[in-house]
Amino acid sequence: MIYPDDSVGLVKPQLHQFNDDLVLSSGQILSEWHLAYETYGVLNKSRSNAVLICHALSGHHHAAGYHTETDAKPGWWDTAIGPGKPIDTNHFFVISVNNLGGCHGSTGPTSINPETKEIYGPNFPAVTVKDWVRSQALLADHLGIDKFSAIIGGSLGGMQALQWTIDYPIRVEHAVLIACTPKLSAQNIAFNEIARLAISSDPNFRAGNYHKYGVNPDQGLGIARMLGHVTYLSDDAMRDKFGRELKSGDLNQARDVEFQVESYLHYQAESFSKRFDANSYILITKVLDYFDPAREFNDELISCLKTARSKFLVVSFTTDWRFSPKRSKEIVDALIAANKQVVSTTIESPHGHDSFLLPIDRYFQVLQTYMSQIYRDLIK
Amino acid sequence: MIYPDDSVGLVKPQLHQFNDDLVLSSGQILSEWHLAYETYGVLNKSRSNAVLICHALSGHHHAAGYHTETDAKPGWWDTAIGPGKPIDTNHFFVISVNNLGGCHGSTGPTSINPETKEIYGPNFPAVTVKDWVRSQALLADHLGIDKFSAIIGGSLGGMQALQWTIDYPIRVEHAVLIACTPKLSAQNIAFNEIARLAISSDPNFRAGNYHKYGVNPDQGLGIARMLGHVTYLSDDAMRDKFGRELKSGDLNQARDVEFQVESYLHYQAESFSKRFDANSYILITKVLDYFDPAREFNDELISCLKTARSKFLVVSFTTDWRFSPKRSKEIVDALIAANKQVVSTTIESPHGHDSFLLPIDRYFQVLQTYMSQIYRDLIK
Repeated sequence: MIYPDDSVGLVKPQLHQFNDDLVLSSGQILSEWHLAYETYGVLNKSRSNAVLICHALSGHHHAAGYHTETDAKPGWWDTAIGPGKPIDTNHFFVISVNNLGGCHGSTGPTSINPETKEIYGPNFPAVTVKDWVRSQALLADHLGIDKFSAIIGGSLGGMQALQWTIDYPIRVEHAVLIACTPKLSAQNIAFNEIARLAISSDPNFRAGNYHKYGVNPDQGLGIARMLGHVTYLSDDAMRDKFGRELKSGDLNQARDVEFQVESYLHYQAESFSKRFDANSYILITKVLDYFDPAREFNDELISCLKTARSKFLVVSFTTDWRFSPKRSKEIVDALIAANKQVVSTTIESPHGHDSFLLPIDRYFQVLQTYMSQIYRDLIK
Repeated sequence: MIYPDDSVGLVKPQLHQFNDDLVLSSGQILSEWHLAYETYGVLNKSRSNAVLICHALSGHHHAAGYHTETDAKPGWWDTAIGPGKPIDTNHFFVISVNNLGGCHGSTGPTSINPETKEIYGPNFPAVTVKDWVRSQALLADHLGIDKFSAIIGGSLGGMQALQWTIDYPIRVEHAVLIACTPKLSAQNIAFNEIARLAISSDPNFRAGNYHKYGVNPDQGLGIARMLGHVTYLSDDAMRDKFGRELKSGDLNQARDVEFQVESYLHYQAESFSKRFDANSYILITKVLDYFDPAREFNDELISCLKTARSKFLVVSFTTDWRFSPKRSKEIVDALIAANKQVVSTTIESPHGHDSFLLPIDRYFQVLQTYMSQIYRDLIK
């Protein structure tokens, strides 16, 4: 297969096994853990051109390129990463890591607990954004990267980039925070809790031990996904996509799926249940809920950001009501008050929170310009 | 017990049995059906001072006063209805009806099907806003009311008031549409579908036949209610109400209920499951989804409203994102284009869609002023 010139082409996921225990924020210890990751582009001699991509709730390390020649789709952020693309692999050595607790290759609830020799399942320890960032820093150590040119993430990925600037100030030159928030709102937490409850109420969930019984809480996970999906889209985007098209218009069928939007959601639910682990979903939504770096600083975001030494790009989207522009502005205001160098913009987009995953012209222009400037500074 | 001067005091729900079959929009026929209702105030000699209150999704006929001396709470809109209140029972004869398909006294899924002598359950026929309005008109006939001074409703109640003006133009002097929409958006439908799926996925739902098995889909109904609740509140209202207060702050408890908002939602879910029938919930959310009076008029709302002869008051609330001010404006614009007399206002309120149930000063001033004017015209 011939890939387009701006594709990273075939890529191979890598696994790094860590032999030292990882003491988590909760105090629990993870031993014999590993991270799955991919890299695109080449690390320069001075090891100064590394860029870390942090993924969001349902993401993973496969951000760009293809795993096999028959893959129907490339990685989840292939539109942004590649030769000549905003995150230009001709310039940068890009690393994309699957987070701990996920279900795509890094140690998580579906891994074997070395102590019990059984699947962790619901007993996988709680992790935090801080834990993720530390595990990523350990991977960076292994790869010999002292400092990232940029750490980039959207949504939960942006929270990781932000945490990096707080926990490892000298290791981050630039942080790019996209559709991000300094902490979840009560509404965000409420949606997450409803999603978790949908999963845990599924009789197949069996207190998280579904693996043992050879079943899967498809229904609950599907409902959780539907709910996520609806909140990631804007009302307008849904109208444009589905309108109120009736499938039959027959009122007597009123108890079955009848509107196009219902049919779409059912499809999304089904496909997600097949590829995502329910314990991971619960764990990761809790990571989101608990993210609140200012908490250790008397709830003062400004104090929390004082020690950061990065420069920042903060991007939000007009119709994102899950992590609205207002929430990005909180970060920007605190960064300015903390005397940090910050560039910020709100992109006009009808696509709600999902915008951060889409190749919206103006958004990609901003990203490309910012990354080009980083590269120019790098080779100066 | 002594009630406040502005309370309607003790009230007695009434039941009216209809002997004629009701042919529903679906073509199905309801025989031996009845409506539960309450009245407050006195019908004047010319029978011209009647006001109809239409309830929303989880409402019922008990809008004002108390059923027993030991009731902890009065009816759901007691703040608005009573002597001297915006809907002044010294001036108006107020009727509040429980809708068909509900679960508070009118014929619905928990009623006995006269044909089978068994509970209707999931076999209760689909109903529409049009059907509700017709059943209310038949009740008005029985009560000898040719024309209502005003028909008032919030949310799904507003949709009924709007439908009245289309189906019975000469029987409605004024329609008061509060936090209403001419039809649901795809997002609204999606939330309803997720709620329905949460209910139908509950193993206790048993395809709607839970009564037969002596069980109840508490979990599913609870999730549906939580979801409704979160979408009826604004993000700001939730922040003010709950903030992000942690109950213990102990990360190791991260899989349990940890934030105040979660605890609140769980309480809401539990209390709702005890008082609402799951089949009714599914049925009524479908009524919402299908409401679209312009559909019969080539999707032209203006044409649809041409024959209306009522005057209109349309009220919306700034932070209502479920049925936003934009949706009310669609109605207002169409009414103006159709040459109708319409007064409209958007009330500043942090409480989201729930605002329509709350005694917000400015909102109640508008309601009081409008209703007083109606009364002045009436006694002229």
